[in-house]
Amino acid sequence: MAPHGDKSDAADETMVAKAEKRPISTILIVLAMQSEALPVVNKLNLSEDLQSVFPKGVPWVRYRGFYKDLNINLVWPGKDSSLGVDCVGTVPASLVTYASIQALQPDLIINAGTAGGFKAKGACIGDVYVASDVAFCDRRIPIPVFDLYGLGLRQALSTPNLQKELNLKVGKLSTGDSLHMSTQDEASMVANDAVVKDMEAAAVAYVADLLKVPSVFLKVVIDIKDGEETTAEESSQRFAALERAVTQVTDFINGKCLSDL
Amino acid sequence: MAPHGDKSDAADETMVAKAEKRPISTILIVLAMQSEALPVVNKLNLSEDLQSVFPKGVPWVRYRGFYKDLNINLVWPGKDSSLGVDCVGTVPASLVTYASIQALQPDLIINAGTAGGFKAKGACIGDVYVASDVAFCDRRIPIPVFDLYGLGLRQALSTPNLQKELNLKVGKLSTGDSLHMSTQDEASMVANDAVVKDMEAAAVAYVADLLKVPSVFLKVVIDIKDGEETTAEESSQRFAALERAVTQVTDFINGKCLSDL
Repeated sequence: MAPHGDKSDAADETMVAKAEKRPISTILIVLAMQSEALPVVNKLNLSEDLQSVFPKGVPWVRYRGFYKDLNINLVWPGKDSSLGVDCVGTVPASLVTYASIQALQPDLIINAGTAGGFKAKGACIGDVYVASDVAFCDRRIPIPVFDLYGLGLRQALSTPNLQKELNLKVGKLSTGDSLHMSTQDEASMVANDAVVKDMEAAAVAYVADLLKVPSVFLKVVIDIKDGEETTAEESSQRFAALERAVTQVTDFINGKCLSDL
Repeated sequence: MAPHGDKSDAADETMVAKAEKRPISTILIVLAMQSEALPVVNKLNLSEDLQSVFPKGVPWVRYRGFYKDLNINLVWPGKDSSLGVDCVGTVPASLVTYASIQALQPDLIINAGTAGGFKAKGACIGDVYVASDVAFCDRRIPIPVFDLYGLGLRQALSTPNLQKELNLKVGKLSTGDSLHMSTQDEASMVANDAVVKDMEAAAVAYVADLLKVPSVFLKVVIDIKDGEETTAEESSQRFAALERAVTQVTDFINGKCLSDL
């Protein structure tokens, strides 16, 4: 929480340029649900951090470990202390991302998770998308300039080599706190040209942008938002697909600089 | 960001009981807009904190000062660095509340601001409400238990003496990130029995509850959400009404314990 000092913007830019040219070292993986987190924790052989870097009382959970040359930190917002369900949505995601950046100073954030897809835009069940940019679909403030603020459009880190090497789909991502879209949410997503919809990414992007940490958004499509209802694979298979995607991206990142992605 | 140690819950409860019986000392006032903040800053003779307790890069602004026997901290999330508008809504409010609690350890939070009111529930332009409880109106997750999580209902601190002494109205408050309600948002607010609607309170309540800080929600009705469009007073008068309400509440709190409110 301490101020970072009074370095000039020029000095900051020099630091960013240097960071782009040295190998990525510390990664923060932000997930929203325990069932998304645990397969990745197991695959990357991470351990729960029992001396929490977070304040007493918060349910946020951090797993840590070294994987190849990377210092991996995986966080999720934990379970609601009264209700026992995963703390999904934008507010817990923004808070755990903020606290994790402050405590861990990561070089890169990977916000991964399951998501809905729009068939009309080419999304199919099981597709793995990297977001080109993210925006909110449920913050309608029809006052000039505030309308753009509500939309909260932010670019993800450009990752052309990652996308090509791993054969990932690329598209725009819309975030909203409701699982079921209202007519207005849907209109906003069409206006955003969204291909995938989740419940956290635009909030993670907001915090990452505030604190100048480059971010990648990796989403596995598990249901279709437009057209007929589709049944995804068994839950365990969905989360296995997410684990494979996160592992592949982590393997690709290992030893590379930001500018190599 | 350091962990608070491993004090037992019983010890925490003893601390809370003691806190309720000693005079309130440090107050955190959370507002969403500069035009709401500045009249209060001027009235309470607060000064901007130029050695920020917040990280470099964030737009959050803190004003501080002593008013009577109270150590007052007033924060607002500042202006969006690209767009120049106030950072309204749940995500910035939750972040600045979290960071302020960590840095300042307040005894009490007052989330104040302008709001919409429901005529059908008795709200009129200019009314000053203290929320009995707060909930989200735009987080629809129709899965058992997740539906309750999405609603995020939280009780405000009980303040019967404050309400009676200052002749404040009391009602339920709904929070959503959109200025204009969707049909679904409106249905949620009716289900919540909401009298006033704002864009931050439920997020402030979420963070305050996580970190166990008692909170009061003070909202001045400046427009009517149901029925015919109404024109409020001039903007400056609206914010003057908010300033008067915050000052009256601060005067009432001075010298009292939490259990006196």
